[in-house]
Order: sequence, then C-alpha cells, then structure tokens
Amino acid sequence: MNNFTYRNPVELVFGKGTIAELRRLVPQGDKVLFAYGGGSIKKNGVYDQVRAALEGREVLEFAGIEPNPRYETCMKAVDLCRKEGVGFLLAVGGGSVLDAVKFIAAAVPFQGEPWDILAKHARVEAALPLRSVLTLSATGSEMNGNSVISRDETREKLAFYSPLVYPKFSILDPETTFTLPPRQTANGVVDAFAHTMEQYMTYPADAPLQDRLAEAILSTLIEIGPKLLEHPHDYQLRANMMWTATMALNGIIGLGVPQDWATHGIGHELTALYGMDHGQTLAVVMPAVWRFKFADKKAKLAQYAERVWGVLGTEEEKARAAIEKTEEFFRLLGVKTRLAEYGAENAVEQVPPRLAQRGVVLGERRDIGPDQVREILRLCAA
Amino acid sequence: MNNFTYRNPVELVFGKGTIAELRRLVPQGDKVLFAYGGGSIKKNGVYDQVRAALEGREVLEFAGIEPNPRYETCMKAVDLCRKEGVGFLLAVGGGSVLDAVKFIAAAVPFQGEPWDILAKHARVEAALPLRSVLTLSATGSEMNGNSVISRDETREKLAFYSPLVYPKFSILDPETTFTLPPRQTANGVVDAFAHTMEQYMTYPADAPLQDRLAEAILSTLIEIGPKLLEHPHDYQLRANMMWTATMALNGIIGLGVPQDWATHGIGHELTALYGMDHGQTLAVVMPAVWRFKFADKKAKLAQYAERVWGVLGTEEEKARAAIEKTEEFFRLLGVKTRLAEYGAENAVEQVPPRLAQRGVVLGERRDIGPDQVREILRLCAA
Repeated sequence: MNNFTYRNPVELVFGKGTIAELRRLVPQGDKVLFAYGGGSIKKNGVYDQVRAALEGREVLEFAGIEPNPRYETCMKAVDLCRKEGVGFLLAVGGGSVLDAVKFIAAAVPFQGEPWDILAKHARVEAALPLRSVLTLSATGSEMNGNSVISRDETREKLAFYSPLVYPKFSILDPETTFTLPPRQTANGVVDAFAHTMEQYMTYPADAPLQDRLAEAILSTLIEIGPKLLEHPHDYQLRANMMWTATMALNGIIGLGVPQDWATHGIGHELTALYGMDHGQTLAVVMPAVWRFKFADKKAKLAQYAERVWGVLGTEEEKARAAIEKTEEFFRLLGVKTRLAEYGAENAVEQVPPRLAQRGVVLGERRDIGPDQVREILRLCAA
Repeated sequence: MNNFTYRNPVELVFGKGTIAELRRLVPQGDKVLFAYGGGSIKKNGVYDQVRAALEGREVLEFAGIEPNPRYETCMKAVDLCRKEGVGFLLAVGGGSVLDAVKFIAAAVPFQGEPWDILAKHARVEAALPLRSVLTLSATGSEMNGNSVISRDETREKLAFYSPLVYPKFSILDPETTFTLPPRQTANGVVDAFAHTMEQYMTYPADAPLQDRLAEAILSTLIEIGPKLLEHPHDYQLRANMMWTATMALNGIIGLGVPQDWATHGIGHELTALYGMDHGQTLAVVMPAVWRFKFADKKAKLAQYAERVWGVLGTEEEKARAAIEKTEEFFRLLGVKTRLAEYGAENAVEQVPPRLAQRGVVLGERRDIGPDQVREILRLCAA
C-alpha cells in the first residue's frame, strides 16, 4: 500500500424526488448556465423538474452537448459564459454533459488557449463553480474531478483532472434513468465495471481492503447488470446501479494502489477514430489487455476469478477463466467484444502511430507503448 | 435503499513520513492549540515530529486528554482557547483526543452551557477549524463529524454530530501505531468491526453494494486482526488497519441503509459506569444484541456467516454460527465477551434505569427500550 492523499468535497443528494432539492441547494443571485444534451431530458420530465426548481432564478440554457462532448461545442458555451457573466454552471445529464461542464468551468477564466488544459496539461488555476443533476449511471463524473473532451479537428479525445472542477453537489435521482435505451444502460454497466478494473486488475500490492472493495463493486455489477436490462423501471435496481457507478470512480477504491488505465487510453482512440461508444471500446479492449499482460496480471486475475466468479482450479486455470467470464458478461449485456463487430479492424494499424505521436505509454508498469498497443489490438480484432 | 445525502470534506494524507506535511498544510498566522493525550506521543517520537513541523508557528499546548475524554477536561481547553484567541485546533492522538477536540471546537463559540450540545442536542452554529494527526486505528473520528464525551459528575457518556467538526485534514501515518500496546490494538480491531456491524447487521434492504462493502471491511479485519497482534511493527499490516478503520466509519458503507447502534448505546453505559474500554463493551454487548434480536437479524446473520466466514448450512445454522464465529474472533484477539469477566454483572440492573431516565430507545427498528436492554445484558452476563 502506497502513500496517498484524498479529498472529495462533493455533496451527494441521492434518491427519488431529489431534483426538487435544487431550489434549496442552488445559491440565490448568481446567473446560472443550465447545460444539457440532446433533449432526452425534455421527454422524461427532468427538464421540467429542473426548470420548476430554478423558478425565480436567472437561467441561461445551453443545449446540444453531444456524447463524447466536443471542444468546439464547449467553446460556444465558454463564449456565452464570458459574455453573460454566468456565476455557476448546472450540468443536467450523463457523463458527457458533466465532463463538458467541467471543461467549460475551467476554460471560462483560463488565460490563453483552453485546449492546452487537455493537450498540454496546462494548470487550471481557477474555475467557475459547477453543480450537477445526473441522468445516467456510468462515468462517475458526478463525484470526481475528471473530464474527457473530444476535438473534431484533430480527432483527439483527451482527459484532464483538477480539484477545482468537482461538482459542489450532485443530485442522483435513479428515476431519471428509467427511460434510458438498453444500449446506454449496458454501456453504463461496462463503464463502471471497467473503471473498477483499471484500479484493481494490476498486481498484488498488499492492499486487501482496496481489493475487496473493488470486488464488492464487480460482484454487484454482475448481479444487477443483466437484471437492469430486463427490468428498466425497477427503482431498486436503478438506485443500486447509480450508487455503484459512483463508487466505481470517486477515487476510494484506488487509493494507495497501482492503476492501469491502458484500456481507457486505447479505447479513447477507438471512439475518436470510429465513433464507437465508450462502453463498447472498453468491452473490446479490456480482455485483450489482460491477454497481452497475462503473466503480469495472472495473480490478480486468479483472485478475481475465485472471489467474484467462484472459479476453482490452478492459478493459470482461474486466470484464464477470469478473462472468459468477463467477456461472456459483456456479451450477455449485449455489448460486442471484437473490433470486427464494429467495423473497426483498421485500428490495429491506425491507433499505434497516433499514440506514438503523442508519446503515450500506458499500463500500471508504464510499459505499453505503440508496439504493445498493436499487439493488444490484434488480440481483439476478430 | 433509502434516499440519502453525503458530504465528507476531510482531506486524508496517508502514509509513512506524512507528519512533516503539517508544515505545508497548516495555515500561517493563526494561533494553534496542539492538543494531545497522556504523553505516549512523547515516547514514540510523534510529539517531536509535530513540533518540528510547526516550527515558527505560535503554538499553545494542551496535554492530558484522557481515554473517554471528560467534559471537565474539555472545558479547561475551551477556557484556554477563549482566553488566548486560538485560531484552530490540532488534535494529535487517537479517537479520544479527536473527539475531545471536536467538542472543544464546537464549545468555544457556543452561547450558553456547552453540555447542552451533548445532553440536549443543542444546535452547533459555529466551530473553530480543526485538524488531526491520528495515532490509533479504531474510531474513524479522523474522517467524520462524530464525537463522544463523558462527564464525571453525572457518569454519562454522550455523543453529538455536526458537519462543522469534520477535520480539515487528517494525517494518517501508520508508523505512529507501531508502539501501541496489544490491548489497544485489539480494541481498535473490535471497534472498527463493530462500527461496520452497526451499519450492516440489520435486515435486508435492497442494498447489495452497501452489504458487500461492509463485508469487505469485515473480511479484512478478520484477516489482519490476529496478524497485527503478532507483528505490531509490520508497516503494511498497520497501514491496512488504519485505512480499514477509517473506511468503517466515514459514512460510506451506511448510506441509504438502516442502522442499529444499540451495541454502542449500551456499551457507552458500561464505560460510564465501570470504566470498561470502549472496545471491550462492544465485544460483550454485540453478540448479545444479535442473540436477543435473532429473528429480526437472522437473514443478515446468515448472509454474513456465508460470505465472510464461508459457513454453509440452513439459514438458522448459518445465523447461529455467525454469532459463535464473531465471539470467537473477539476472544482470539484477547478481548473478553462477558460482563462477569470485567466484574460488571451489576449492569443488568444498573443500566436499564439510566436509559429509561433519558428516554433512550435503540436499534434499527427503535424497539429496544430499557426492558429489552435488561434482557440483552442478561445474555452476556456470565
């Protein structure tokens, strides 16, 4: 177990009917930018609930934040905030809207070209305050300081972190997720699962609690994932999914342990190049990373197989079974696990030079460079 | 799963060598009250590390905070803070020092008799900022807003909670716990175990993640507890214990689920009347609460037996085994589990009228009154 620091100041307001709490929680006086996505919140009643709770406030709307939010879109909101003197941001949506709003919050007071926050890790010295109403269980963005933004011009998808872009509060009403299409529900399960694995599936690090907390999340996702697809309006299932996805990436389970994140690093390229859903990229790449790094990850793969799936056998047998079981789980959720199934076989050749150009090395041992990525992509091509 | 709100703003600074971080973390200018206990920090080097890190600051010392910190002691510190215009408090010690400092922080600006914060749940409207350096893994006080204070005059031990008394930061250096006597180490394991159980051992509440997170903590304590007593200078064991005890009572595992706390409610009386260690009272009372509430808790007892202890059988068999296994675990740690072993059999008659006088009812169903407490105490008398 390594040294760590941790601070997570987000106030969570969780449960049915909690959007009305906005009225109490949102400060008086400041001008609000109410940011949302493609309009699904107008169909499921969330938009009306938010407007009702904000009655009497000065509210500007910014609609049209897309999945894998685009830098170009964010910069329109940045201009609006600067012009109108917006006091704080309210993100209403899933991880894409939250991530966009985090970037907008950091970009508004930024001196210079805000793309540098993503491309050059320019330091974020200030940010507008932001708050959120979550409508999709997946990214954990509601309780962390992470954001991932895409840019059309360069076909890049890049991430940043800042302690200044944690939401002041996040309202998590599971009922807002009742109307999600099955594909988004399934992607959310895969995303939370992969977040947990990026912090867990490395090598033994004398951290039995972190291991077991991660296994708790994995077991829960395996238990509730398929049920969610069968019973999309079951409040308890949706509530458990929402809390589980938050716990998967609020930082707790990764404290003091090595982390991988190679799957995300490669997955972002697949989204940038082929428009694959984030969850789909993870379902494809993660088993291949494990196959490629089998020797390094064998001990943890075997532990996972035994504790989470109840597999018995030799370490080798358990570790092999861990990969098979995980891939079967993704496919059971309806998420395909091979590049060819998304028409993205070209990735084997197209992704490595892009990573080489940015000098990216990945994995808990920082030993996955472009050549290793090519091998990994070959392992999930067809 | 019930609705909940959660916010925990404590910054954790975890690991060996982190006391030196005080220099960076403590604000310049404000006068510090450096509060500690009976002087063990002078023997194990912690005092010197703290003084070195505070060099150049205006520091007042307040020593002599006892285990089960006394109101009378706290009020001396309150007077000192008021007289000297102390800017913030630095607690250096275990849960007792932290709890005392939380109460002092709330009492300094309090208008009226500060005992009312404990006895009448008077609202805490303001508090001095406080920070902590933890030297004992047990209470979780380093990452919550709870405090328990005792009063000689009335032989009472009462608790309060306020969002204003979370430490700004807590430094957790596992090396500070190397020199703890075995009794304190064992009590700490029992305390963290009991905190987890108070939030878990109730009835099924459609909260699979909370259940599994609690089981993760219980399994870890069972794994490392006995080893800690054998290898008190093992850094990794001490580090895992420290993080596990913090996670047991930072609020995460109890979100949205019923909680019991009858064991603590009864245990505090045993400490107030007989001076039993807090951990000892929990080891005595908890198995008796489970025996008394066997029907209500049977489903969770059986789940715990199966998942944490690997017990198989009928629900009844597993639930019975859960109680036996737990009592064996406490005794394996050297913590006795019967009132008679502490010369405290009188509790059967002495405790119930005290609770009756305060109108206390306990348990997740609020159905444990004085008569039920008498039955519980009979079950752990001899």
